[in-house]
Amino acid sequence: MDITGYMTQLGQQARFASKQMAVATTLQKNRALIAIAEQLVINQEALLAANHLDLQAGRDRQLSDALLDRLALNESRIQSMVDGLHQVAALADPVGEITDLCFRPSGIQVGRMRVPLGVVGIIYESRPNVTADAAALCLKSGNATILRGGSEAKHSNQAIAKAITAGLSETGLPSDAVQVVATTDRAAVGALISQPEYVDVIVPRGGKSLIERISREARVPVIKHLDGNCHLFVDEKADLEMARKVAFNAKTQRYGTCNTLETLLVAEPVAIQLLPKLIAEYQQAGVEIRACAKTRELVSGLVAATEEDWDTEYLAPILAVRVVSGLDAALDHIDAHSSQHTEAIITDDIHAAQRFLREVDSSSVMVNASTRFADGFEYGLGAEIGISTDKIHARGPVGLEGLTSQKFIVIGQGHIRE
Amino acid sequence: MDITGYMTQLGQQARFASKQMAVATTLQKNRALIAIAEQLVINQEALLAANHLDLQAGRDRQLSDALLDRLALNESRIQSMVDGLHQVAALADPVGEITDLCFRPSGIQVGRMRVPLGVVGIIYESRPNVTADAAALCLKSGNATILRGGSEAKHSNQAIAKAITAGLSETGLPSDAVQVVATTDRAAVGALISQPEYVDVIVPRGGKSLIERISREARVPVIKHLDGNCHLFVDEKADLEMARKVAFNAKTQRYGTCNTLETLLVAEPVAIQLLPKLIAEYQQAGVEIRACAKTRELVSGLVAATEEDWDTEYLAPILAVRVVSGLDAALDHIDAHSSQHTEAIITDDIHAAQRFLREVDSSSVMVNASTRFADGFEYGLGAEIGISTDKIHARGPVGLEGLTSQKFIVIGQGHIRE
Repeated sequence: MDITGYMTQLGQQARFASKQMAVATTLQKNRALIAIAEQLVINQEALLAANHLDLQAGRDRQLSDALLDRLALNESRIQSMVDGLHQVAALADPVGEITDLCFRPSGIQVGRMRVPLGVVGIIYESRPNVTADAAALCLKSGNATILRGGSEAKHSNQAIAKAITAGLSETGLPSDAVQVVATTDRAAVGALISQPEYVDVIVPRGGKSLIERISREARVPVIKHLDGNCHLFVDEKADLEMARKVAFNAKTQRYGTCNTLETLLVAEPVAIQLLPKLIAEYQQAGVEIRACAKTRELVSGLVAATEEDWDTEYLAPILAVRVVSGLDAALDHIDAHSSQHTEAIITDDIHAAQRFLREVDSSSVMVNASTRFADGFEYGLGAEIGISTDKIHARGPVGLEGLTSQKFIVIGQGHIRE
Repeated sequence: MDITGYMTQLGQQARFASKQMAVATTLQKNRALIAIAEQLVINQEALLAANHLDLQAGRDRQLSDALLDRLALNESRIQSMVDGLHQVAALADPVGEITDLCFRPSGIQVGRMRVPLGVVGIIYESRPNVTADAAALCLKSGNATILRGGSEAKHSNQAIAKAITAGLSETGLPSDAVQVVATTDRAAVGALISQPEYVDVIVPRGGKSLIERISREARVPVIKHLDGNCHLFVDEKADLEMARKVAFNAKTQRYGTCNTLETLLVAEPVAIQLLPKLIAEYQQAGVEIRACAKTRELVSGLVAATEEDWDTEYLAPILAVRVVSGLDAALDHIDAHSSQHTEAIITDDIHAAQRFLREVDSSSVMVNASTRFADGFEYGLGAEIGISTDKIHARGPVGLEGLTSQKFIVIGQGHIRE
């Protein structure tokens, strides 16, 4: 198979479809989303059969239980995809939104109109639900999509793609608006990320090594985050009961998510009141503590943290704990070790809160709230295609708006420039 | 000289300075802008002497008169830089602006805070005023800047840089917040555009070949436009008096700007009423017409347009003219040939206006106004660092806001995620 030729063809088809998608009406797009949801229900047996083939192959290749679990579809997971499509259909259409339309001294009116980005490439790993979820967000935002899922989910992804194509053609939208790459050859990824003429942005979803490779090699912009090494700082003027509750939630509510707390920083004056009790609670919940020297003076029997711990996203029941002299030291620690994902402060002091909000250079900065809130749904974006820790184009959770841009519009009555 | 080492040092210094700039107060930044303006006035003689060296060298190297004119400083051009600095000081500070702060069902408040991008690299050619203008915009938006001007302006740029450094240190801001690359070695450009760890975005200003090379080779995002192949379409339901006036202005008000009209499209039903008179006016103003076959049937003695003409940004008193069957054909022509800079329609028909605004995929789309309005000042941005025809991050004229991003902020009262 000529991978370059094949990917060029997908790219050209996507570019062509993107022009029709950009002017599709809200009603057309919503009908397509509902039709795709119906197709998933109608073809549930075929979906489960395709997924069965992937699971079989995965077991033969001795994939881990965690990977097999991510790969698996069942009735309730299919229902989640269906619900997701209905939710995206219910979201407001960002395309065509006109804002800031003002009269200028010259007499012209100048404003902005929201437009789709064009073609979005999604590169993901084992979860087949991404095929439907990502396609839905791109479709609603008027973009064409090229989806490249993991080889381990190839049968499942093609079965979902078939349902998407059927739904699109039912409603008169171009079936090339959503294309799933049919080859599992790794060269297809290389081609997808080096076609600026056909692909406007790449959203990689998966492990850090995948995302690092794509960012390094891509010839088109990438919306991504690498790590979620999130910090919570307990200020000396914190409500310690609140601090205990939020710090516990931020670490233990879910271990494997990118907004989970990984390093707890505590101001020295309150460390002795807070840490012994909080660490006992963590330990009771099965969380291993990696502690700085001062923490180990307060609580015995803890593993010593190494320099590496401050830079590690554990994604596991492990927490690094460090006592710092105060706000300035906390800001320095965060500046040196943060992955710019999410950082929070617990404080009663408005000045500390204001400084933390202003000075911490992360995509989400929080006061008196759990880092676990850093999420497109919690923020009211409706859904999330990914999280960006970069500053160009999007920062933080990326929803429909992050898949669009704004052009300028000018309305005159025959105005000329003097 | 070790260019890579030197550029790494500039990058590290810029990154360090950017952290101080991000938290500088509005008053500090405004005072620095005024102090820089004062330094330009105080050092006017030194500036003119440095510029004299550049002009001398330019004449020796037999630069064209146009290039020498772009290179030249005089009292009024220095005054323009001074005025520009005062204007930027008077603009609202975008940094720290909080928008969309709303309560979510969970009880947390979620909003966005505007933050600087970090380090902006500016690569430009002969005009030394860019050194002051670009530095001012980056400074006001809380960014650090690395400026790399053309070798032909090296003495002028270093003299301006000296004034900037003096102004910065007078007001307690880091002098590394604005650095002018001291070497004219071309390898410095290569190093500047391949340091994603130190440079967040590159803005190239200059000829198409410079910008093409930078876009191709950059390892960091680039805010740019290549061409301004702008179109004006006269609809069949246009006020022809308005059409004549706007079409004439869009082409002749200035020939060398990127928002100047390059191809005029006219709906067939009104071509005979509009074109003979309008073309005569153009010719009287010294504009050469390159015409399609139908136009040549209406007006004799015109040069035939070739396929290449539809894709050419003349930047000169030359205009391509084409008669099209109507709106659909005009949209097709624009889709095939536009550089996505600025396109305008003249029409009395609201349906045609709505379709044109929605369907034309350009960074500025206009109804009944001259393409010459596509400009940061005319749009009310206060000033302009460049124009983007891309869709990622910024589209259209880019002012202070385009040099910033938005992070999410969350404010709770001890909220945890259930």
